[in-house]
Amino acid sequence: MAIRILVTGGTFDKEYDELAGVLFFKDTHVPEMLRLGRCLVPVEVSTVTMVDSLQMTDADRERILARCREAPEDRVVVTHGTDTMVETARVLAAARTGKTIVLTGAMVPYAFGSSDGLFNLGSALSFAQVLPAGVYVAMNGRCLPAERARKNRERGVFEEAD
Amino acid sequence: MAIRILVTGGTFDKEYDELAGVLFFKDTHVPEMLRLGRCLVPVEVSTVTMVDSLQMTDADRERILARCREAPEDRVVVTHGTDTMVETARVLAAARTGKTIVLTGAMVPYAFGSSDGLFNLGSALSFAQVLPAGVYVAMNGRCLPAERARKNRERGVFEEAD
Amino acid sequence: MAIRILVTGGTFDKEYDELAGVLFFKDTHVPEMLRLGRCLVPVEVSTVTMVDSLQMTDADRERILARCREAPEDRVVVTHGTDTMVETARVLAAARTGKTIVLTGAMVPYAFGSSDGLFNLGSALSFAQVLPAGVYVAMNGRCLPAERARKNRERGVFEEAD
Amino acid sequence: MAIRILVTGGTFDKEYDELAGVLFFKDTHVPEMLRLGRCLVPVEVSTVTMVDSLQMTDADRERILARCREAPEDRVVVTHGTDTMVETARVLAAARTGKTIVLTGAMVPYAFGSSDGLFNLGSALSFAQVLPAGVYVAMNGRCLPAERARKNRERGVFEEAD
Repeated sequence: MAIRILVTGGTFDKEYDELAGVLFFKDTHVPEMLRLGRCLVPVEVSTVTMVDSLQMTDADRERILARCREAPEDRVVVTHGTDTMVETARVLAAARTGKTIVLTGAMVPYAFGSSDGLFNLGSALSFAQVLPAGVYVAMNGRCLPAERARKNRERGVFEEAD
Repeated sequence: MAIRILVTGGTFDKEYDELAGVLFFKDTHVPEMLRLGRCLVPVEVSTVTMVDSLQMTDADRERILARCREAPEDRVVVTHGTDTMVETARVLAAARTGKTIVLTGAMVPYAFGSSDGLFNLGSALSFAQVLPAGVYVAMNGRCLPAERARKNRERGVFEEAD
Repeated sequence: MAIRILVTGGTFDKEYDELAGVLFFKDTHVPEMLRLGRCLVPVEVSTVTMVDSLQMTDADRERILARCREAPEDRVVVTHGTDTMVETARVLAAARTGKTIVLTGAMVPYAFGSSDGLFNLGSALSFAQVLPAGVYVAMNGRCLPAERARKNRERGVFEEAD
Repeated sequence: MAIRILVTGGTFDKEYDELAGVLFFKDTHVPEMLRLGRCLVPVEVSTVTMVDSLQMTDADRERILARCREAPEDRVVVTHGTDTMVETARVLAAARTGKTIVLTGAMVPYAFGSSDGLFNLGSALSFAQVLPAGVYVAMNGRCLPAERARKNRERGVFEEAD
């Protein structure tokens, strides 16, 4: 069972720019993370965009949706910034693609020693293999259906909406 | 949905002894890994034993089985050395506990920078939440039922038996 | 021979704020780095300030100078942002304290896996033990007297002024 | 001022063998460590041997000495296992090469997250640039002349002989 990974940027892939002293996007770390996890599940990685999710536009979301639909795989993992992960999840859910789509990301950039990225990627790839068609947000070991996911901005965690 | 994590040692938890220059077992890294993964799923961690799985005895396996049965949780993750993970999985499967039990481990100790441990732990905790009752081996993104799992010692990977 | 370490912030000590998604200063990593380096040289660590060196004022520099003078030790390492490290070095050099003062920092925050911080700290503590009284900038294995150090902003490295 | 780095193995360069579950030697990590330290000092790295220093023979020591003499550089850093670092240092010291030779190593393999290797390499390269001709052991921030260095095996640290 093959999985498509669509990369869109987010905290996950933020890098440190040595000259300017700021965080920025270069290449995705997903292939390196799959190597580290010695991933044995067949995956195809494509980069849709590389943005902070606060900058993500409706057009970006339409492109992610189109790429989910076009992918030959029925199971898709989308790496995404956490700030608007729920908004994108809802756009994908409303489109009823008939696929299993799992959005994931990280609270801390993978390039930081203290990142939750590798844990989340292992988790998202696992949920993507066994959950029925639908759109989910998988962060920090928990998986919520798009309709019921909410980011608690004060605590910085995802939780189930009432 | 709470998960019990039973720690039994294995590559996962090998440490470097600075004085003797060899690998050994001290405390488990599982709590630190859960913190790094910012795990939001309620888990209880108990150490059953701390051994290289080549040293694991039938008595050890009976103890692991007893702890799976006694645990108030219906979903259990067992961290285990890879060499005899399949043997332990078969003992647990034969006992038909009615619980979802997922064994996981690492090809490289967590204390090494290049470990697959965090990826595998995120993966195992995810499979444990959604798979039906049964015993599984979850390594490197893949999850195999105990009956069909086999370690390929030349390649160092788990694969499905014919 | 004891060494005083004066912490002033800089890239060295930048942390990632999980909630805001930006870099900020919390506590210094210097004690943790000394533990990692298993440092056997007696050192005393004091924090003077925690700022990006672009924000460093003349008053801050006077405070660093005062702390160099007041320290009971004759050998001092100052951790500092790289952008204005040379300016601070010149203020300290002009004051002719009669002490050996070595400024160091990092191109990438210590909290990033790819930081040069630990290498630079080991280097600065070594130069501080053997160089005669004077003020030096020690970065990436090289040590330059304050008067001849210059930051090449395009290449992001310190080099000797002509 | 160029520095020759002679690699001889030791804890520094121990790797984890995923298939056998033991520590072994593959390639040296020194070039990767120099990249991480963004080292600006011109260095040439040559591998003399890759052994645990308990296995080091008199013939190995003669080869290291020959390579120190042949090197066009006057300043040499030797990476070495800690168990017999002092013995090798004494052989090099007795030969009176007229060069500055600094031996260094690590208490924990570089491939482990918790290694002191990068700190020690930054330190050794710094001492090598400024100390007069002679043979030294540089570990954990401290530098001792070959004649007065001793490894305290209980505590795992280098100290000055009485």
